[in-house]
Amino acid sequence: VTFADRLAGVVRARGSQIVLGLDPDPARLWPEAVAQAPADGPPARAAAAAVRAHCVALIDAAGPACVAVKPQLACFERLGADGWAALAATVEHAREAGLLVLADGKRGDIDVSAAAYAQALVGSTPTPFGDVRGLGADAFTANPLLGVDALTPLVEGARAAGAGVFVLVRTSNPGAADVEDLELAAGGPLWERLAAIVAALGEPGPESGLADVGAVVGATQPEHVARMRELMPQAPFLLPGIGAQGGRVEDLAPAWAAGRAGGLVSASRSIAQAYETAAGTPAAAARAEAERLRELAWSLA
Amino acid sequence: VTFADRLAGVVRARGSQIVLGLDPDPARLWPEAVAQAPADGPPARAAAAAVRAHCVALIDAAGPACVAVKPQLACFERLGADGWAALAATVEHAREAGLLVLADGKRGDIDVSAAAYAQALVGSTPTPFGDVRGLGADAFTANPLLGVDALTPLVEGARAAGAGVFVLVRTSNPGAADVEDLELAAGGPLWERLAAIVAALGEPGPESGLADVGAVVGATQPEHVARMRELMPQAPFLLPGIGAQGGRVEDLAPAWAAGRAGGLVSASRSIAQAYETAAGTPAAAARAEAERLRELAWSLA
Repeated sequence: VTFADRLAGVVRARGSQIVLGLDPDPARLWPEAVAQAPADGPPARAAAAAVRAHCVALIDAAGPACVAVKPQLACFERLGADGWAALAATVEHAREAGLLVLADGKRGDIDVSAAAYAQALVGSTPTPFGDVRGLGADAFTANPLLGVDALTPLVEGARAAGAGVFVLVRTSNPGAADVEDLELAAGGPLWERLAAIVAALGEPGPESGLADVGAVVGATQPEHVARMRELMPQAPFLLPGIGAQGGRVEDLAPAWAAGRAGGLVSASRSIAQAYETAAGTPAAAARAEAERLRELAWSLA
Repeated sequence: VTFADRLAGVVRARGSQIVLGLDPDPARLWPEAVAQAPADGPPARAAAAAVRAHCVALIDAAGPACVAVKPQLACFERLGADGWAALAATVEHAREAGLLVLADGKRGDIDVSAAAYAQALVGSTPTPFGDVRGLGADAFTANPLLGVDALTPLVEGARAAGAGVFVLVRTSNPGAADVEDLELAAGGPLWERLAAIVAALGEPGPESGLADVGAVVGATQPEHVARMRELMPQAPFLLPGIGAQGGRVEDLAPAWAAGRAGGLVSASRSIAQAYETAAGTPAAAARAEAERLRELAWSLA
């Protein structure tokens, strides 16, 4: 079963297109998670235990309203080996909860190194001591700056594992204008060229018709979404930028011209930190915000 | 002391501009390293022990002819938490050997996530349990696709730690032509625009005059190097693509118009796997190849 067909099935079964971003900042964890961590031992170990507890609690609270989690890899890597172990445990917990896992590391490198990233995130690595399984994500984000021969090992590694790739096409930050929006001599902005690369790399799943290579499309520039859908008719879109960054779910309807699984709305801080501005416990506020987004997106698709 | 001034000092003291790439493939490690790993325990632990032994042996053999090591992060991440621990141990060993460490992960993400990558690689992370130190690298590679507001937290995080950033400008793979070489409506290829961004972000060190923001410039397109030096007069260049990818040290002389530390020649497989085509042990062959490259580059600078 291809990634896109699996994705479409999970979207349907869970009735959700919401992706729960996991960007744990050790200085802003839920208080209950900090309280759970062992106070003795090195700071990295305690902080990683707290990060893990935070992510588990967040998944338990908001996960039922979501289709996937999106761990931001830097947030775990900054705690070293302990952080990577917390990441692996978080991925495992999300899978047990029936959620897909989109590893958000925006990787990109030349052929041999790209193949190693695919092994790390969705595949496995042959060693003299036996195969070592990677993170076991269902998909990961990738950066296309290095061109097609750098994306291909990522796509092939993902495809061999029944996983998917979401390639950056037009990101949600204001600075995206500096490079991604540059006008090309051949016409159109750079991001339209990136969209064409994504469209060419993907293979549609036999059931859903959706491709196994998707696009990261910032929700902060909604006028782009319809054009993106024209250029990549079969690609699932990962749509960050809702909430803290100013994007609105209401503006994303063109994404769902490819079906309900054609647009995945990613939210991180607006769910995890909802309790800072809403009533109730962190868990209750997170659940309510995720459910609010779920209903809103589902009503548009 | 800024990164570039430190770099210039270490280049001078060691008489080398060679960067030893550490891209350990568990299936192609030096036999002595595999033999050292404990045969019991999980495959990831044994493979990580072998990777660590391989990197230590490679540093001991070829390090004396080099100025820095460049661990390729994917090669460690594919072994999970054990791999990250092997990476940390490798970094520690390289620093004890007097080598600089350039963490090669080609990271790039929006503001908050970019700041987390800087914490992971060169800084530290505040947590309720105390600060957690990152990898302690001297510099890292970064991807500029997301624009200046995504590069800035990387540069600021590095600068605060006395570290540096090498931004991808024109990579060594053939596919670089797909995106990096695209002609812009405003004139010139995309990589010239990336070079302008790099030149604007860097601050020169008071001693060396070299900037703390450098550029990754593939050695496979030597005709670009002189133009790069025009566009980025103060940036140190990290020059991959020698050896297995076909680049020649002899073609890189324009890089050193900014001084001996203005061009760092990176080689990985051609050093680590030299024994496959040359006489002697893996260590002797690696040392001889690194020393050959060192003499050649030094004679041109």
